[in-house]
Amino acid sequence: MAKKKKSSNTSLTDQLRVPKGKVDLSDLDPRATPGYPGNGKKDAAERTLSLQPELSDLQERLYAAGRAGDPDAKRVLVILQGMDTSGKGGVIRHAIGMVDPQGVQLKAFKAPTAAEKRHDYLWRIRKAVPSPGMIGIFDRSQYEDVLTVRVNKMVPAATWRKRFAEINAFESELVDQGTTVIKCFLHVSRDKQKERLAERLADPEKYWKYNPGDVDERVKWDAYQTAYADVLTRCNTEAAPWFVIPSDRKWYRNWAVAQLLTEHLRALDLGWPEADFDVEAEKERLAQS
Amino acid sequence: MAKKKKSSNTSLTDQLRVPKGKVDLSDLDPRATPGYPGNGKKDAAERTLSLQPELSDLQERLYAAGRAGDPDAKRVLVILQGMDTSGKGGVIRHAIGMVDPQGVQLKAFKAPTAAEKRHDYLWRIRKAVPSPGMIGIFDRSQYEDVLTVRVNKMVPAATWRKRFAEINAFESELVDQGTTVIKCFLHVSRDKQKERLAERLADPEKYWKYNPGDVDERVKWDAYQTAYADVLTRCNTEAAPWFVIPSDRKWYRNWAVAQLLTEHLRALDLGWPEADFDVEAEKERLAQS
Repeated sequence: MAKKKKSSNTSLTDQLRVPKGKVDLSDLDPRATPGYPGNGKKDAAERTLSLQPELSDLQERLYAAGRAGDPDAKRVLVILQGMDTSGKGGVIRHAIGMVDPQGVQLKAFKAPTAAEKRHDYLWRIRKAVPSPGMIGIFDRSQYEDVLTVRVNKMVPAATWRKRFAEINAFESELVDQGTTVIKCFLHVSRDKQKERLAERLADPEKYWKYNPGDVDERVKWDAYQTAYADVLTRCNTEAAPWFVIPSDRKWYRNWAVAQLLTEHLRALDLGWPEADFDVEAEKERLAQS
Repeated sequence: MAKKKKSSNTSLTDQLRVPKGKVDLSDLDPRATPGYPGNGKKDAAERTLSLQPELSDLQERLYAAGRAGDPDAKRVLVILQGMDTSGKGGVIRHAIGMVDPQGVQLKAFKAPTAAEKRHDYLWRIRKAVPSPGMIGIFDRSQYEDVLTVRVNKMVPAATWRKRFAEINAFESELVDQGTTVIKCFLHVSRDKQKERLAERLADPEKYWKYNPGDVDERVKWDAYQTAYADVLTRCNTEAAPWFVIPSDRKWYRNWAVAQLLTEHLRALDLGWPEADFDVEAEKERLAQS
């Protein structure tokens, strides 16, 4: 196991946070590896794994507060967005997979069901927010309602335009309630997406990961990039900022999300819950049992 | 990473399966380590981890079939039962934690809520069974309705006695539907339980894991052992047999459940789903996109 690395002056959180103002995705290099302290792909898996002891400890503190019934117990919500093949699944497998599954509430948002469509778009989202002490993971999220819904003209422009403010208000409410919201845009290049889709078509063991609809969406690439740039510009709030994770290199992407999650948990400065029983009396009872 | 171990003549599945007939728990040593191929605690963590590549591959095949919409897609359900401190949580963290969280549906059954109590005891259980392609994990289960419910006299004896047959019928239905049911009794000794509870009382970082109710249940140890022996005798069906996991040694317990799960997945002989699209046509579409 690698030694705990010295904290550098700049956290990854600071380096990946989207600056205030208008975002132009073409300014952001999907192949970049900002803040990576190691030697590239060679040691990335090991470096990611070396985060596990601290991540486990922090997650257990979070979970303990939730279990102990603390009404102020914190929650964490990681939102993963990105084009097809950007690696939402890979991040869940390799980064979130390092966390005790008992402390994780994972929710993948697909196209809404008939029942979900009868409600406001945030209805199903609200039902899935993490409980006290839990780390929630959203694989896609409310942002699809200003992304695919916009690009595919599923509602009038006046409708999706109002949603930026609605989403900001919703997230602000979560934050006020004690939820740390970590919004990750997995930024993949158009060429890399083509390469990854081609890999799926080249290997019968990966056919199941391929969907002809992926190419239908791919041809709308520019419209999606515009929609993402608007999301990163208009929903990049102080309470719940966006992070851009360069994702052409899987090893960097996985490390970066694990590191971001670790830094955010660390910042919560979590202790351990106090006993809500008389410790000495319980020792006595146990001894006699 | 350790090399894949040669398969021995006897699978762990065969070694841990409860033989037909009346079970006497005092015949079963909670400190035993049947089938463990290594060198005790020293190499257990590494041996458990060395199962991960095969376990991951098998789980992905299971998941792929579920995703591909195969109506015959298999499901797996691991049921974890055992006295307090037997390590249900530890198994989830260390053994199930090796599996991609996207393929796992974890459900912990606590005391039923007011809403749940208005329904038949299997109502909430049925709602939580795994979807096609998924590995379901039950942390406690329908068996609490013939264990704690019996020991604490929460229903008349005539009621819980009927449940053995009901549970057998329910599980047989799951199996007929394509679910592999792996029922694990984590067998811990009375002394080891005392030791583990004492550890929680000795360490302020573990207070949150302690509940004074644990001692209330501990004093009913013999009644629980009788109730468990009945479960292992009366619900040990051909379709869904019981496995006893000696659990005084955590390292053995975690390895054993991971190994059992691997053997059961292996036995499903899972392939990869065929493409439900024209591969060559899609290659062409992708090339032009």
